[in-house]
Amino acid sequence: MTEKTVTACVLIIGNEILSGRTRDANLAYLGSRLNELGVRLMEARVIPDRVEVIVETLNEVRRRFDYVLTTGGIGPTHDDITAECVARAFGVPLIEHPEARAILEDHYGPDELNEARLRMAKTPEGASLIENPVSKAPGFQIGNVFVMAGIPAIMKAMFESLQHRLTGGNPLLSRAVVAALPESYIAPGLGDIQARYPEIEIGSYPFYRMGVFGVRLVLRAPQPEPLEAAVGEVRELVRQLGADPKDKV
Amino acid sequence: MTEKTVTACVLIIGNEILSGRTRDANLAYLGSRLNELGVRLMEARVIPDRVEVIVETLNEVRRRFDYVLTTGGIGPTHDDITAECVARAFGVPLIEHPEARAILEDHYGPDELNEARLRMAKTPEGASLIENPVSKAPGFQIGNVFVMAGIPAIMKAMFESLQHRLTGGNPLLSRAVVAALPESYIAPGLGDIQARYPEIEIGSYPFYRMGVFGVRLVLRAPQPEPLEAAVGEVRELVRQLGADPKDKV
Repeated sequence: MTEKTVTACVLIIGNEILSGRTRDANLAYLGSRLNELGVRLMEARVIPDRVEVIVETLNEVRRRFDYVLTTGGIGPTHDDITAECVARAFGVPLIEHPEARAILEDHYGPDELNEARLRMAKTPEGASLIENPVSKAPGFQIGNVFVMAGIPAIMKAMFESLQHRLTGGNPLLSRAVVAALPESYIAPGLGDIQARYPEIEIGSYPFYRMGVFGVRLVLRAPQPEPLEAAVGEVRELVRQLGADPKDKV
Repeated sequence: MTEKTVTACVLIIGNEILSGRTRDANLAYLGSRLNELGVRLMEARVIPDRVEVIVETLNEVRRRFDYVLTTGGIGPTHDDITAECVARAFGVPLIEHPEARAILEDHYGPDELNEARLRMAKTPEGASLIENPVSKAPGFQIGNVFVMAGIPAIMKAMFESLQHRLTGGNPLLSRAVVAALPESYIAPGLGDIQARYPEIEIGSYPFYRMGVFGVRLVLRAPQPEPLEAAVGEVRELVRQLGADPKDKV
Protein backbone atom coordinates (compact mmCIF):
# COMPACT_ATOMS: atom_id res chain seq x y z
CA MET A 1 0.00 0.00 0.00
CA THR A 2 2.98 2.41 0.33
CA GLU A 3 3.16 4.82 -2.61
CA LYS A 4 -0.35 4.07 -3.85
CA THR A 5 -2.27 7.20 -4.77
CA VAL A 6 -6.04 6.74 -4.97
CA THR A 7 -7.61 9.42 -7.15
CA ALA A 8 -11.01 11.05 -7.51
CA CYS A 9 -12.80 13.53 -9.75
CA VAL A 10 -15.84 15.59 -8.75
CA LEU A 11 -18.47 16.54 -11.34
CA ILE A 12 -20.64 19.47 -10.36
CA ILE A 13 -23.67 19.32 -12.61
CA GLY A 14 -25.76 22.45 -13.03
CA ASN A 15 -26.34 25.52 -15.19
CA GLU A 16 -26.92 27.42 -11.97
CA ILE A 17 -23.28 27.21 -10.94
CA LEU A 18 -22.03 28.20 -14.41
CA SER A 19 -24.36 31.18 -14.67
CA GLY A 20 -22.95 32.53 -11.41
CA ARG A 21 -26.35 32.57 -9.70
CA THR A 22 -25.39 29.90 -7.22
CA ARG A 23 -21.97 29.60 -5.68
CA ASP A 24 -20.77 26.02 -5.31
CA ALA A 25 -20.56 25.01 -1.68
CA ASN A 26 -19.63 21.36 -2.08
CA LEU A 27 -16.16 21.22 -3.60
CA ALA A 28 -14.15 22.38 -0.59
CA TYR A 29 -15.99 19.91 1.65
CA LEU A 30 -15.41 17.00 -0.71
CA GLY A 31 -11.73 17.85 -1.29
CA SER A 32 -11.10 17.97 2.41
CA ARG A 33 -13.10 14.84 3.35
CA LEU A 34 -11.64 12.79 0.50
CA ASN A 35 -8.13 13.69 1.61
CA GLU A 36 -8.91 12.52 5.14
CA LEU A 37 -9.90 9.17 3.64
CA GLY A 38 -6.64 8.94 1.67
CA VAL A 39 -8.31 9.75 -1.66
CA ARG A 40 -6.71 12.56 -3.67
CA LEU A 41 -9.11 14.89 -5.49
CA MET A 42 -7.28 15.39 -8.80
CA GLU A 43 -9.84 17.35 -10.77
CA ALA A 44 -13.26 18.93 -10.54
CA ARG A 45 -15.49 19.96 -13.40
CA VAL A 46 -18.56 22.10 -13.49
CA ILE A 47 -20.74 21.12 -16.43
CA PRO A 48 -24.16 22.19 -17.70
CA ASP A 49 -27.45 20.24 -17.63
CA ARG A 50 -26.94 18.84 -21.12
CA VAL A 51 -27.25 15.14 -21.81
CA GLU A 52 -24.41 14.82 -24.32
CA VAL A 53 -21.96 16.81 -22.19
CA ILE A 54 -22.75 14.86 -19.03
CA VAL A 55 -22.50 11.45 -20.76
CA GLU A 56 -19.25 12.27 -22.54
CA THR A 57 -17.64 13.77 -19.44
CA LEU A 58 -18.70 10.83 -17.25
CA ASN A 59 -17.21 8.34 -19.67
CA GLU A 60 -13.96 10.25 -19.81
CA VAL A 61 -13.44 10.73 -16.10
CA ARG A 62 -14.68 7.37 -14.81
CA ARG A 63 -11.86 5.75 -16.80
CA ARG A 64 -9.18 8.23 -15.71
CA PHE A 65 -9.85 8.32 -11.97
CA ASP A 66 -10.42 5.68 -9.30
CA TYR A 67 -13.61 7.37 -8.10
CA VAL A 68 -16.05 9.88 -9.58
CA LEU A 69 -18.47 11.77 -7.36
CA THR A 70 -21.24 13.83 -8.89
CA THR A 71 -23.43 16.50 -7.31
CA GLY A 72 -26.70 17.86 -8.67
CA GLY A 73 -29.51 16.91 -11.01
CA ILE A 74 -31.21 14.08 -9.12
CA GLY A 75 -34.44 15.76 -8.05
CA PRO A 76 -38.00 15.42 -9.35
CA THR A 77 -38.08 18.08 -12.08
CA HIS A 78 -37.64 17.97 -15.86
CA ASP A 79 -34.09 19.35 -15.61
CA ASP A 80 -32.93 16.54 -13.28
CA ILE A 81 -31.25 14.34 -15.83
CA THR A 82 -28.22 12.94 -14.02
CA ALA A 83 -29.59 9.41 -13.47
CA GLU A 84 -30.59 9.11 -17.12
CA CYS A 85 -27.15 10.32 -18.22
CA VAL A 86 -25.31 7.90 -15.93
CA ALA A 87 -27.39 5.02 -17.32
CA ARG A 88 -26.50 6.08 -20.86
CA ALA A 89 -22.82 6.43 -19.99
CA PHE A 90 -22.77 2.88 -18.60
CA GLY A 91 -24.94 1.57 -21.46
CA VAL A 92 -27.61 0.14 -19.14
CA PRO A 93 -31.34 0.87 -18.90
CA LEU A 94 -32.79 3.38 -16.44
CA ILE A 95 -35.09 1.41 -14.14
CA GLU A 96 -37.34 2.07 -11.17
CA HIS A 97 -35.23 0.86 -8.26
CA PRO A 98 -37.54 -1.22 -6.00
CA GLU A 99 -35.75 -0.26 -2.80
CA ALA A 100 -35.82 3.44 -3.75
CA ARG A 101 -39.54 3.20 -4.49
CA ALA A 102 -40.13 1.58 -1.12
CA ILE A 103 -38.23 4.39 0.63
CA LEU A 104 -40.29 7.06 -1.16
CA GLU A 105 -43.61 5.24 -0.51
CA ASP A 106 -42.74 5.00 3.13
CA HIS A 107 -41.78 8.67 3.29
CA TYR A 108 -44.58 10.28 1.27
CA GLY A 109 -47.33 7.68 1.71
CA PRO A 110 -48.74 5.95 -1.38
CA ASP A 111 -51.24 8.75 -2.16
CA GLU A 112 -48.62 11.50 -2.24
CA LEU A 113 -46.17 9.60 -4.43
CA ASN A 114 -46.80 11.42 -7.67
CA GLU A 115 -45.08 10.85 -11.01
CA ALA A 116 -42.54 13.60 -10.34
CA ARG A 117 -41.49 12.08 -7.05
CA LEU A 118 -41.23 8.66 -8.65
CA ARG A 119 -38.53 10.11 -10.92
CA MET A 120 -36.36 10.07 -7.81
CA ALA A 121 -36.68 6.25 -7.66
CA LYS A 122 -35.07 5.89 -11.08
CA THR A 123 -31.51 4.57 -11.22
CA PRO A 124 -29.34 2.83 -13.79
CA GLU A 125 -29.84 -0.94 -13.66
CA GLY A 126 -27.33 -2.49 -11.27
CA ALA A 127 -26.93 0.61 -9.10
CA SER A 128 -26.85 0.41 -5.32
CA LEU A 129 -28.46 3.17 -3.29
CA ILE A 130 -26.80 5.86 -1.18
CA GLU A 131 -28.83 6.70 1.89
CA ASN A 132 -30.25 10.20 2.30
CA PRO A 133 -31.12 10.78 5.95
CA VAL A 134 -32.21 14.39 5.30
CA SER A 135 -34.95 14.16 2.68
CA LYS A 136 -35.04 10.40 1.96
CA ALA A 137 -34.77 10.38 -1.89
CA PRO A 138 -31.55 8.39 -2.28
CA GLY A 139 -28.41 8.83 -4.33
CA PHE A 140 -26.83 5.84 -5.98
CA GLN A 141 -23.56 4.18 -6.93
CA ILE A 142 -22.78 2.29 -10.10
CA GLY A 143 -19.25 1.07 -10.70
CA ASN A 144 -16.86 3.76 -9.50
CA VAL A 145 -19.42 6.57 -9.90
CA PHE A 146 -21.26 7.99 -6.87
CA VAL A 147 -24.26 10.18 -7.59
CA MET A 148 -25.28 12.69 -4.93
CA ALA A 149 -27.69 15.60 -4.53
CA GLY A 150 -26.50 19.18 -5.03
CA ILE A 151 -28.04 20.72 -1.91
CA PRO A 152 -25.08 20.97 0.48
CA ALA A 153 -26.84 19.57 3.57
CA ILE A 154 -28.04 16.55 1.61
CA MET A 155 -24.76 16.08 -0.27
CA LYS A 156 -22.86 15.98 3.02
CA ALA A 157 -25.25 13.46 4.54
CA MET A 158 -24.97 11.29 1.42
CA PHE A 159 -21.18 11.51 1.48
CA GLU A 160 -21.14 10.36 5.09
CA SER A 161 -23.40 7.45 4.06
CA LEU A 162 -21.14 6.35 1.22
CA GLN A 163 -17.67 7.01 2.62
CA HIS A 164 -17.13 3.44 3.85
CA ARG A 165 -17.30 2.32 0.21
CA LEU A 166 -14.17 4.31 -0.67
CA THR A 167 -10.83 2.57 -0.19
CA GLY A 168 -8.14 5.19 0.32
CA GLY A 169 -4.38 5.08 0.03
CA ASN A 170 -2.00 7.07 2.18
CA PRO A 171 -3.55 10.36 3.21
CA LEU A 172 -1.38 13.42 2.74
CA LEU A 173 -0.41 15.10 5.96
CA SER A 174 -0.63 18.84 5.71
CA ARG A 175 0.84 21.79 7.61
CA ALA A 176 0.45 25.47 6.92
CA VAL A 177 2.48 28.51 7.94
CA VAL A 178 0.95 31.95 7.47
CA ALA A 179 3.04 35.13 7.29
CA ALA A 180 2.31 38.81 6.67
CA LEU A 181 4.87 39.01 3.87
CA PRO A 182 4.43 39.59 0.16
CA GLU A 183 4.98 36.31 -1.69
CA SER A 184 7.92 37.73 -3.63
CA TYR A 185 9.98 38.29 -0.44
CA ILE A 186 9.86 34.65 0.45
CA ALA A 187 10.00 33.14 -3.04
CA PRO A 188 13.81 32.63 -3.37
CA GLY A 189 14.26 30.99 0.06
CA LEU A 190 11.14 28.91 -0.42
CA GLY A 191 12.39 27.65 -3.77
CA ASP A 192 15.60 26.55 -2.01
CA ILE A 193 13.64 24.62 0.62
CA GLN A 194 11.52 22.97 -2.09
CA ALA A 195 14.72 21.93 -3.89
CA ARG A 196 16.05 20.29 -0.70
CA TYR A 197 12.73 18.50 0.02
CA PRO A 198 11.56 17.20 -3.37
CA GLU A 199 9.23 14.67 -1.67
CA ILE A 200 7.22 17.48 -0.08
CA GLU A 201 4.64 19.44 -2.02
CA ILE A 202 5.12 23.09 -1.03
CA GLY A 203 2.42 25.48 -2.14
CA SER A 204 2.52 29.25 -1.75
CA TYR A 205 -0.85 31.02 -1.64
CA PRO A 206 -0.84 34.77 -1.53
CA PHE A 207 -3.74 36.70 -0.11
CA TYR A 208 -4.69 40.33 0.06
CA ARG A 209 -6.90 41.47 2.88
CA MET A 210 -7.64 44.97 4.08
CA GLY A 211 -4.69 46.37 2.17
CA VAL A 212 -2.15 43.84 3.50
CA PHE A 213 -0.38 41.26 1.38
CA GLY A 214 0.26 37.96 3.09
CA VAL A 215 1.07 34.42 2.16
CA ARG A 216 -0.05 31.01 3.29
CA LEU A 217 2.56 28.32 2.79
CA VAL A 218 1.15 24.81 2.69
CA LEU A 219 3.40 21.76 2.99
CA ARG A 220 2.03 18.31 2.21
CA ALA A 221 3.65 14.90 2.42
CA PRO A 222 2.69 11.35 3.41
CA GLN A 223 5.45 11.07 6.07
CA PRO A 224 5.52 13.22 9.24
CA GLU A 225 9.30 13.50 9.85
CA PRO A 226 10.46 15.29 6.69
CA LEU A 227 7.28 17.38 6.86
CA GLU A 228 8.12 18.68 10.34
CA ALA A 229 11.73 19.35 9.32
CA ALA A 230 10.63 21.37 6.29
CA VAL A 231 8.03 23.27 8.33
CA GLY A 232 10.83 24.20 10.76
CA GLU A 233 12.89 25.58 7.89
CA VAL A 234 9.97 27.56 6.51
CA ARG A 235 9.28 29.09 9.93
CA GLU A 236 12.94 30.04 10.27
CA LEU A 237 12.89 31.62 6.80
CA VAL A 238 9.86 33.73 7.72
CA ARG A 239 11.62 34.90 10.89
CA GLN A 240 14.76 35.82 8.96
CA LEU A 241 12.60 38.01 6.74
CA GLY A 242 11.38 39.86 9.82
CA ALA A 243 7.86 38.39 10.08
CA ASP A 244 6.13 36.21 12.63
CA PRO A 245 5.31 32.70 11.33
CA LYS A 246 1.83 31.62 12.39
CA ASP A 247 1.21 27.88 12.46
CA LYS A 248 -2.00 26.47 11.11
CA VAL A 249 -2.78 22.77 11.23
CA MET B 1 -25.41 37.79 -34.96
CA THR B 2 -28.82 36.34 -34.02
CA GLU B 3 -28.50 32.78 -32.70
CA LYS B 4 -24.76 32.98 -32.21
CA THR B 5 -23.63 31.54 -28.89
CA VAL B 6 -20.18 32.65 -27.77
CA THR B 7 -18.70 30.16 -25.32
CA ALA B 8 -16.09 30.20 -22.58
CA CYS B 9 -14.34 27.80 -20.25
CA VAL B 10 -12.73 28.75 -16.94
CA LEU B 11 -9.66 26.87 -15.65
CA ILE B 12 -9.03 27.23 -11.94
CA ILE B 13 -5.43 26.19 -11.39
CA GLY B 14 -4.37 25.22 -7.88
CA ASN B 15 -3.86 22.30 -5.50
CA GLU B 16 -5.23 24.55 -2.79
CA ILE B 17 -8.74 24.49 -4.22
CA LEU B 18 -8.68 20.71 -4.75
CA SER B 19 -7.41 19.99 -1.24
CA GLY B 20 -10.36 21.91 0.18
CA ARG B 21 -8.15 24.38 2.05
CA THR B 22 -9.24 27.32 -0.07
CA ARG B 23 -12.73 27.78 -1.37
CA ASP B 24 -12.89 29.15 -4.89
CA ALA B 25 -14.29 32.65 -4.94
CA ASN B 26 -13.87 33.46 -8.63
CA LEU B 27 -16.19 31.18 -10.56
CA ALA B 28 -19.51 32.78 -9.63
CA TYR B 29 -18.14 36.22 -10.47
CA LEU B 30 -16.81 35.12 -13.84
CA GLY B 31 -19.99 33.23 -14.77
CA SER B 32 -22.12 36.22 -14.00
CA ARG B 33 -19.88 38.85 -15.66
CA LEU B 34 -19.35 36.72 -18.78
CA ASN B 35 -23.10 36.32 -19.15
CA GLU B 36 -23.57 40.10 -18.99
CA LEU B 37 -21.11 40.36 -21.89
CA GLY B 38 -23.03 37.79 -23.93
CA VAL B 39 -20.47 35.04 -23.37
CA ARG B 40 -21.82 31.73 -22.08
CA LEU B 41 -19.68 29.94 -19.51
CA MET B 42 -20.03 26.32 -20.64
CA GLU B 43 -17.58 24.56 -18.38
CA ALA B 44 -15.17 25.14 -15.53
CA ARG B 45 -12.37 22.88 -14.42
CA VAL B 46 -10.30 22.87 -11.29
CA ILE B 47 -6.91 21.30 -11.99
CA PRO B 48 -3.74 20.77 -9.96
CA ASP B 49 -0.37 22.55 -10.26
CA ARG B 50 1.05 19.89 -12.58
CA VAL B 51 2.66 20.81 -15.86
CA GLU B 52 1.36 17.91 -17.95
CA VAL B 53 -2.23 18.30 -16.68
CA ILE B 54 -2.29 22.05 -17.28
CA VAL B 55 -0.80 21.78 -20.79
CA GLU B 56 -3.11 18.97 -21.86
CA THR B 57 -6.21 20.64 -20.44
CA LEU B 58 -5.36 23.99 -22.03
CA ASN B 59 -4.91 22.42 -25.43
CA GLU B 60 -8.21 20.59 -25.14
CA VAL B 61 -10.35 23.51 -24.01
CA ARG B 62 -8.83 26.30 -26.12
CA ARG B 63 -9.96 24.36 -29.20
CA ARG B 64 -13.44 23.58 -27.85
CA PHE B 65 -14.45 27.01 -26.57
CA ASP B 66 -14.29 30.54 -27.97
CA TYR B 67 -12.53 31.87 -24.87
CA VAL B 68 -10.54 30.29 -22.05
CA LEU B 69 -9.92 32.20 -18.82
CA THR B 70 -7.48 30.87 -16.25
CA THR B 71 -7.02 31.86 -12.60
CA GLY B 72 -4.04 31.10 -10.41
CA GLY B 73 -0.36 30.23 -10.66
CA ILE B 74 1.15 33.48 -11.98
CA GLY B 75 3.01 34.71 -8.89
CA PRO B 76 6.72 34.75 -8.03
CA THR B 77 7.14 31.33 -6.35
CA HIS B 78 8.35 27.93 -7.59
CA ASP B 79 4.80 26.58 -7.79
CA ASP B 80 3.65 29.39 -10.13
CA ILE B 81 3.88 27.51 -13.41
CA THR B 82 0.93 28.78 -15.43
CA ALA B 83 2.91 31.03 -17.83
CA GLU B 84 5.37 28.23 -18.58
CA CYS B 85 2.48 25.81 -19.21
CA VAL B 86 0.64 28.21 -21.52
CA ALA B 87 3.86 28.70 -23.54
CA ARG B 88 4.24 24.93 -23.85
CA ALA B 89 0.61 24.50 -24.86
CA PHE B 90 1.03 27.08 -27.63
CA GLY B 91 4.46 25.72 -28.60
CA VAL B 92 6.21 29.08 -28.17
CA PRO B 93 9.12 30.09 -25.92
CA LEU B 94 8.63 31.69 -22.51
CA ILE B 95 10.23 35.13 -22.69
CA GLU B 96 10.73 38.12 -20.44
CA HIS B 97 8.08 40.54 -21.64
CA PRO B 98 9.73 43.99 -21.94
CA GLU B 99 6.57 45.88 -21.05
CA ALA B 100 5.96 43.64 -18.03
CA ARG B 101 9.55 44.15 -16.88
CA ALA B 102 9.13 47.91 -17.20
CA ILE B 103 5.96 47.79 -15.08
CA LEU B 104 7.71 45.80 -12.35
CA GLU B 105 10.81 48.02 -12.41
CA ASP B 106 8.63 51.05 -12.05
CA HIS B 107 6.67 49.49 -9.19
CA TYR B 108 9.46 47.90 -7.15
CA GLY B 109 12.41 50.09 -8.14
CA PRO B 110 15.42 48.49 -9.86
CA ASP B 111 17.09 47.42 -6.57
CA GLU B 112 14.06 45.54 -5.28
CA LEU B 113 13.39 43.67 -8.51
CA ASN B 114 14.78 40.29 -7.47
CA GLU B 115 14.85 37.09 -9.53
CA ALA B 116 11.57 35.89 -7.99
CA ARG B 117 9.73 39.06 -8.93
CA LEU B 118 11.16 38.90 -12.45
CA ARG B 119 9.35 35.57 -12.84
CA MET B 120 6.20 37.69 -13.02
CA ALA B 121 7.51 39.38 -16.19
CA LYS B 122 7.64 36.04 -18.03
CA THR B 123 5.01 35.40 -20.69
CA PRO B 124 4.72 33.21 -23.75
CA GLU B 125 6.18 34.93 -26.81
CA GLY B 126 3.48 36.89 -28.60
CA ALA B 127 1.35 37.47 -25.52
CA SER B 128 -0.24 40.84 -24.76
CA LEU B 129 -0.50 42.00 -21.17
CA ILE B 130 -3.59 42.32 -18.99
CA GLU B 131 -3.35 45.27 -16.64
CA ASN B 132 -3.31 44.69 -12.88
CA PRO B 133 -4.23 47.93 -11.11
CA VAL B 134 -4.06 46.26 -7.66
CA SER B 135 -0.56 44.83 -7.38
CA LYS B 136 0.92 45.70 -10.82
CA ALA B 137 2.28 42.27 -11.90
CA PRO B 138 0.24 41.77 -15.08
CA GLY B 139 -1.75 38.89 -16.50
CA PHE B 140 -1.57 38.14 -20.20
CA GLN B 141 -3.51 37.01 -23.25
CA ILE B 142 -2.32 34.74 -26.01
CA GLY B 143 -4.75 33.68 -28.72
CA ASN B 144 -8.09 32.98 -27.03
CA VAL B 145 -6.54 32.29 -23.61
CA PHE B 146 -6.62 34.92 -20.85
CA VAL B 147 -4.37 34.30 -17.86
CA MET B 148 -5.32 35.96 -14.57
CA ALA B 149 -4.24 35.88 -10.94
CA GLY B 150 -6.09 33.71 -8.41
CA ILE B 151 -6.49 36.29 -5.64
CA PRO B 152 -10.11 37.43 -6.06
CA ALA B 153 -9.47 41.18 -5.78
CA ILE B 154 -6.75 41.00 -8.42
CA MET B 155 -8.66 38.59 -10.66
CA LYS B 156 -11.65 40.95 -10.69
CA ALA B 157 -9.46 43.95 -11.54
CA MET B 158 -7.81 41.98 -14.35
CA PHE B 159 -11.17 40.85 -15.71
CA GLU B 160 -12.38 44.43 -15.82
CA SER B 161 -9.15 45.32 -17.70
CA LEU B 162 -9.60 42.60 -20.31
CA GLN B 163 -13.36 42.57 -20.81
CA HIS B 164 -13.31 44.88 -23.87
CA ARG B 165 -11.33 42.16 -25.68
CA LEU B 166 -14.26 39.72 -25.45
CA THR B 167 -16.82 39.83 -28.24
CA GLY B 168 -20.10 38.50 -26.93
CA GLY B 169 -23.17 37.16 -28.66
CA ASN B 170 -26.70 37.56 -27.37
CA PRO B 171 -26.73 37.67 -23.58
CA LEU B 172 -29.29 35.45 -21.91
CA LEU B 173 -31.95 37.33 -20.04
CA SER B 174 -32.74 35.73 -16.75
CA ARG B 175 -35.65 35.82 -14.29
CA ALA B 176 -36.07 33.91 -11.08
CA VAL B 177 -39.13 33.03 -9.01
CA VAL B 178 -38.62 31.73 -5.48
CA ALA B 179 -41.27 29.72 -3.63
CA ALA B 180 -41.45 27.98 -0.27
CA LEU B 181 -42.56 24.71 -1.87
CA PRO B 182 -40.82 21.36 -2.11
CA GLU B 183 -39.59 20.87 -5.65
CA SER B 184 -41.70 17.76 -6.13
CA TYR B 185 -44.97 19.74 -5.68
CA ILE B 186 -44.18 21.97 -8.59
CA ALA B 187 -42.43 19.46 -10.84
CA PRO B 188 -45.42 18.28 -12.95
CA GLY B 189 -46.74 21.78 -13.71
CA LEU B 190 -43.26 23.07 -14.35
CA GLY B 191 -42.58 20.27 -16.82
CA ASP B 192 -45.78 21.30 -18.66
CA ILE B 193 -44.60 24.92 -18.88
CA GLN B 194 -41.18 23.80 -20.12
CA ALA B 195 -42.89 21.71 -22.81
CA ARG B 196 -44.90 24.74 -24.00
CA TYR B 197 -41.81 27.02 -24.02
CA PRO B 198 -39.02 24.92 -25.52
CA GLU B 199 -36.97 28.04 -26.34
CA ILE B 200 -36.71 28.92 -22.64
CA GLU B 201 -34.26 27.19 -20.36
CA ILE B 202 -36.13 26.51 -17.12
CA GLY B 203 -34.05 25.40 -14.17
CA SER B 204 -35.39 24.26 -10.83
CA TYR B 205 -33.04 24.64 -7.87
CA PRO B 206 -34.19 23.28 -4.55
CA PHE B 207 -32.82 24.60 -1.30
CA TYR B 208 -33.14 23.61 2.29
CA ARG B 209 -32.72 26.28 4.93
CA MET B 210 -33.60 26.18 8.59
CA GLY B 211 -35.74 23.11 8.11
CA VAL B 212 -37.77 24.50 5.19
CA PHE B 213 -37.69 23.16 1.65
CA GLY B 214 -37.96 25.76 -1.06
CA VAL B 215 -37.26 26.08 -4.73
CA ARG B 216 -35.76 28.73 -6.96
CA LEU B 217 -37.03 28.58 -10.51
CA VAL B 218 -34.75 30.26 -13.02
CA LEU B 219 -35.95 31.06 -16.55
CA ARG B 220 -33.45 32.11 -19.19
CA ALA B 221 -33.92 33.16 -22.80
CA PRO B 222 -32.46 35.68 -25.24
CA GLN B 223 -35.87 37.31 -25.97
CA PRO B 224 -37.86 39.22 -23.33
CA GLU B 225 -41.46 38.55 -24.50
CA PRO B 226 -41.65 34.76 -24.21
CA LEU B 227 -39.60 35.00 -21.03
CA GLU B 228 -42.15 37.32 -19.37
CA ALA B 229 -45.03 35.11 -20.52
CA ALA B 230 -43.41 32.00 -19.06
CA VAL B 231 -42.56 33.80 -15.81
CA GLY B 232 -46.24 34.74 -15.54
CA GLU B 233 -47.26 31.10 -15.90
CA VAL B 234 -44.73 29.98 -13.31
CA ARG B 235 -46.00 32.57 -10.82
CA GLU B 236 -49.56 31.43 -11.42
CA LEU B 237 -48.54 27.81 -10.90
CA VAL B 238 -46.90 28.68 -7.56
CA ARG B 239 -50.08 30.49 -6.46
CA GLN B 240 -52.27 27.51 -7.45
CA LEU B 241 -50.12 25.36 -5.19
CA GLY B 242 -50.87 27.68 -2.29
CA ALA B 243 -47.52 29.53 -2.06
CA ASP B 244 -46.43 33.08 -2.62
CA PRO B 245 -44.20 33.58 -5.67
CA LYS B 246 -41.29 35.92 -4.90
CA ASP B 247 -39.71 37.61 -7.89
CA LYS B 248 -35.98 37.86 -8.13
CA VAL B 249 -34.27 39.60 -11.02
